[in-house]
Amino acid sequence: MCNTCQVTTKDISRPVCILGLGLIGGSLLRDLHAAGHPVFGYNRSRSGARSASAEGFDVSPDLITTLERAETEDALIVLAVPMTAVKELLDAINEYAPTCGFTDVVSVKTAVYDAVRERGMQERYVGSHPMAGTAESGWKASQTGLFQNAVWVVTFDHLFDAEKVTARWIGIWKDVTQIGSLVGAEVVPARVGPHDAAAARISHLTHVLAETLAIVADHGGALTLSLAAGSFRDATRVAGTDPALVRAMCEGNASALVGALDEALSILNDTRAHLDSPDPNIEQLADNGYRSRLRYEARSGQRRSKESVSPTITSSRPVLRLHPGTPNWEKQLVDAETLGARIEVF
Amino acid sequence: MCNTCQVTTKDISRPVCILGLGLIGGSLLRDLHAAGHPVFGYNRSRSGARSASAEGFDVSPDLITTLERAETEDALIVLAVPMTAVKELLDAINEYAPTCGFTDVVSVKTAVYDAVRERGMQERYVGSHPMAGTAESGWKASQTGLFQNAVWVVTFDHLFDAEKVTARWIGIWKDVTQIGSLVGAEVVPARVGPHDAAAARISHLTHVLAETLAIVADHGGALTLSLAAGSFRDATRVAGTDPALVRAMCEGNASALVGALDEALSILNDTRAHLDSPDPNIEQLADNGYRSRLRYEARSGQRRSKESVSPTITSSRPVLRLHPGTPNWEKQLVDAETLGARIEVF
Repeated sequence: MCNTCQVTTKDISRPVCILGLGLIGGSLLRDLHAAGHPVFGYNRSRSGARSASAEGFDVSPDLITTLERAETEDALIVLAVPMTAVKELLDAINEYAPTCGFTDVVSVKTAVYDAVRERGMQERYVGSHPMAGTAESGWKASQTGLFQNAVWVVTFDHLFDAEKVTARWIGIWKDVTQIGSLVGAEVVPARVGPHDAAAARISHLTHVLAETLAIVADHGGALTLSLAAGSFRDATRVAGTDPALVRAMCEGNASALVGALDEALSILNDTRAHLDSPDPNIEQLADNGYRSRLRYEARSGQRRSKESVSPTITSSRPVLRLHPGTPNWEKQLVDAETLGARIEVF
Repeated sequence: MCNTCQVTTKDISRPVCILGLGLIGGSLLRDLHAAGHPVFGYNRSRSGARSASAEGFDVSPDLITTLERAETEDALIVLAVPMTAVKELLDAINEYAPTCGFTDVVSVKTAVYDAVRERGMQERYVGSHPMAGTAESGWKASQTGLFQNAVWVVTFDHLFDAEKVTARWIGIWKDVTQIGSLVGAEVVPARVGPHDAAAARISHLTHVLAETLAIVADHGGALTLSLAAGSFRDATRVAGTDPALVRAMCEGNASALVGALDEALSILNDTRAHLDSPDPNIEQLADNGYRSRLRYEARSGQRRSKESVSPTITSSRPVLRLHPGTPNWEKQLVDAETLGARIEVF
């Protein structure tokens, strides 16, 4: 309970309506339902909606009815569809749920924010990106606990773009961060540009390199595929992702991805030159790569606190506590973005 | 028991002497010991040798004594050291164990075979490459069961290079394949050239891309490392390998690796061009990568036989049964190499 605003911070202040019940949307529906929070959803595929209904979830294959209900209940809408379906859904929200706050869980953020601004919907929008997933997709791949210990990015560009931020927007922002907390994720604030630059490096480039490695191995024929072992299996795992989803995220973040890809190409061309020599030497690549991996492990490595008897596993991300709407919170959000810090809202 | 040669095929016909007790050599020592087969070893690091001795293994830090014992007992010697240490050990074997058969478990095979031929030792050499490992190294990383269901490559170049192959060489070849079978691996025959071309594609290129991805992410700073999730963790796992080992394998197979890297660069340059456009489109990459990953899964996927009540897990690799030394066995080995088939020796 906050002494100032009298709101219990673990609460999401309104029902949640999820549009799209694939891996991410479906897993979110399961987690919110398990936590006892009112949640309902829509799925375009009737078979997916039927499967979810059969498991006892409050799910409909009718978009308009679902949006009208969201409007009536003042639900927070979550767009859990690929980038390619976002604009169409934004138009539907504008028409059938014209006052609802909403977020999205698309893996690119600039493209979504641009579409939101084109429609003048930014006063009720906060972007999300839960950094969790598997190579599987669809309702059948959804699972309880998918977001446990993952990062849940929450955007805050509107704070800087708007002349004046409304209390209603701050309330939506708080609810979105509470969703992340409720499903066990660490909430990391980032604006859409820094998010997309980071996602290009650690997610979209990962996909491009995995696809490339899978293809080069395949070109080697039967013996090559027979010899592939654990390192290859892990490195190409995400090449098993539905190609349409890979395209949606990479093409939707093309500009940042080209930047990351150019850095990769520069390193690979250097490495090629160092290998194609009478005295092959890749010391620089091997040493730098090793140190970079160690830095990543130090940042993401999950460890039990040694000072505590608590069984809670915490990450090594720094933590900033902030209270939405206070004079200092914009600066705190930018600080957290710079540090890659998680936030705790009070 | 074979009706022709009266040898029980699961037997290795002589003691095994392992030089180098790191991840691979140490794990092999553990498995052979657990199977009750006579095995002893040498480790250059006294602390590693002490640790192994303390666990009850027959291990020495003295190379010369170990090799003299191998000669006395007609042991099969296994070189389980990085490429950089191979030549020195070959010279020592020539001096102190001049009649012993030997194999190696180095991840590059042409360079080892060249060093063997330079010393005229090919009549007692058969190359191995167990396709197993972790990002860890050293005796402390060794474990029982590391090779279970892995591929164990066995070379057979000498069959084609020699004017006449001796019964002794065939016996060494059989013993090396039996080691692979005894530790639960699937034995796949390949000559050093095809092996190295395959290893460049599925192992050495995997390392180069993992190091590159780790570096590009690291350049993104704190936010980027904070957002990295499961796909990045898996794709960069092998960047955590000791850089000296990465250099030894990549530099030792530089020529084949340049070929694989050129294929990767061609795909990546194409992808860059398709991304850096008003209408970004990576359909070709996403579709080809997905299909390639499926083909790999179909090949390596381990499944329980549906027709059998046996709990044994078998791979999808085809199997060829052959009897060493019969008129047809050279052709059978080449067929197996072409198919990436595992062999069963009878």
